Amino acid sequence: MKLATLKDGSRDGTLIVINKNLEKAVKVPGIAKTMQDALDRWHEVEGALIDVYNKLQQSTITGSFDPDTNQLMAPLPRSYQWVDGSAYVNHVELVRKARGAEMPEDFWTDPLMYQGVSDQFLGANDPVFVEDESWGIDFEAEIGVITDDVPMGVKEEKACQHIKLLVLLNDISLRNLIPGELKKGFGFLQSKPTTSFTPVAVTPDELGRDWQEYKVTLPLYSYLNGSLFGKPNAGVDMTFNFARLIEHAAKSRKLTAGSIIGSGTISNQDRSKGSSCIAERRMLEIIEQGKPRTSFLQFGDKVKIEMLNASNENVFGSIEQEIREYKP
Amino acid sequence: MKLATLKDGSRDGTLIVINKNLEKAVKVPGIAKTMQDALDRWHEVEGALIDVYNKLQQSTITGSFDPDTNQLMAPLPRSYQWVDGSAYVNHVELVRKARGAEMPEDFWTDPLMYQGVSDQFLGANDPVFVEDESWGIDFEAEIGVITDDVPMGVKEEKACQHIKLLVLLNDISLRNLIPGELKKGFGFLQSKPTTSFTPVAVTPDELGRDWQEYKVTLPLYSYLNGSLFGKPNAGVDMTFNFARLIEHAAKSRKLTAGSIIGSGTISNQDRSKGSSCIAERRMLEIIEQGKPRTSFLQFGDKVKIEMLNASNENVFGSIEQEIREYKP
Repeated sequence: MKLATLKDGSRDGTLIVINKNLEKAVKVPGIAKTMQDALDRWHEVEGALIDVYNKLQQSTITGSFDPDTNQLMAPLPRSYQWVDGSAYVNHVELVRKARGAEMPEDFWTDPLMYQGVSDQFLGANDPVFVEDESWGIDFEAEIGVITDDVPMGVKEEKACQHIKLLVLLNDISLRNLIPGELKKGFGFLQSKPTTSFTPVAVTPDELGRDWQEYKVTLPLYSYLNGSLFGKPNAGVDMTFNFARLIEHAAKSRKLTAGSIIGSGTISNQDRSKGSSCIAERRMLEIIEQGKPRTSFLQFGDKVKIEMLNASNENVFGSIEQEIREYKP
Repeated sequence: MKLATLKDGSRDGTLIVINKNLEKAVKVPGIAKTMQDALDRWHEVEGALIDVYNKLQQSTITGSFDPDTNQLMAPLPRSYQWVDGSAYVNHVELVRKARGAEMPEDFWTDPLMYQGVSDQFLGANDPVFVEDESWGIDFEAEIGVITDDVPMGVKEEKACQHIKLLVLLNDISLRNLIPGELKKGFGFLQSKPTTSFTPVAVTPDELGRDWQEYKVTLPLYSYLNGSLFGKPNAGVDMTFNFARLIEHAAKSRKLTAGSIIGSGTISNQDRSKGSSCIAERRMLEIIEQGKPRTSFLQFGDKVKIEMLNASNENVFGSIEQEIREYKP
């Protein structure tokens, strides 16, 4: 099943069901008004939503329309929780290596995770407004899962049952604000502004055999101004799968329905796959050539992120957005 | 005006208006169903809510009832954003001093702030469930402000206009999980579980002359098992006021309605005022006596937090809660 949220002028938009090839959609006001509403009552509404999805696939439902991705908000336009892991430890090791720092050994066994900004998310085609280019604007292509209610202290074996939807996201980062914030020890705040999402969220079964051991075994394509930037496989080098990330997040508290757990930047040890963020490419340039050559994003730059399966289907739709100057 | 949220079995409860002495309340379904609903449309509903509050004060409204604080959720039971500052830099300096670390000079000019867990909050009398006493359970008494929509890049001078409500809160901390998390640099996650709030949220005008330069100039009383633990004045030694904290949070993004910004643990340089958390008392014991003598919270311990004004009125109602063992 594929779900999305239509812009309607409200903060939470209108929940819609979208068919597999993202060409037909239908509103479901009789089932759930918003994505959060559906997630709050997932066990009640899941069956009815699947029924609509099946009818949409078979073209046996009335009231369907062609969804314009410009008219979509993030599938969950604001959320009560967004925590982002750093499951591709290879990426973390590279970051450290580039600045000559050792990575603690327990980074391989204990997930790194931070609490992100969730009070608003950008839709797939919404521009990214930033005040100052010198802050070092970067994209970060990753995968997120959306959960129902997860009990406190859940273990990996049961955590997996709470994964209800998957999304791709662009975790925009302001690289030059990060060192100051990390030095203070309290994590990211100003350096991680609003995150962007693909047009649709999909249930795990939509991935078929590409969802294995709670990892997505497909390449994630990132493009910068139309040129391929990276296509690492999300199933390769993912040290912690999503079930383990949920266990980590829920150690001392429950997670309520609609919590989003991110994988962190997708990164493969195979360098020929490219990178899912500019910072990683710059680190490789530093390691290989002594200095970075690729600059961070400028106003007017365009980023595209998408995931194609073996049949060349665009599973989540594409994030395609432009960086623009914000004038306060 | 004073507002609260009644438990009704739903995730967001029912918004109620409460009178000044917290003895009478009334539901306002015709104005706003939930606190988030009111905050989302604050400019539309504020006048009508004030009108109800005035009638409640004058006993000229029907349908009022005696609110039982056991039946109250947190005023905002879940929120899209909860960021906590550390505005009492004296407290931060003590923490550092106790572990023999220098505090960077810019901590006096650049606020320390972290992104907290906001997907659920505890009501004033809800027990705090923790799995393991050895995690070092501590209370932290502080003040929070709740905003309407705050534009990106807002400056202190205008940020103050967005403070709509104030609350007291108990930012429960798991002290022994903090060093490991801080060392990783990504901030608090497991070490800062669910936060608790006073029964009511109040508009700034309720504080009268005790709201000065966006600080609350009243002592905050904390009790542990019935004994006074501390009563530092929240208006003293607050290095960054709430307007400055909002400016910091909104540097690179807007804050949406219902964002909660915390002051951090209230702390005075005058040691006779006691402390607003056990960790600070332990630091003082280390500095003065070479080792900590006060232990962290045990199951069965009771914490009470409240703020009385010069007329001995309990402005926000009291947080009174017990620490209990969580069995997964």
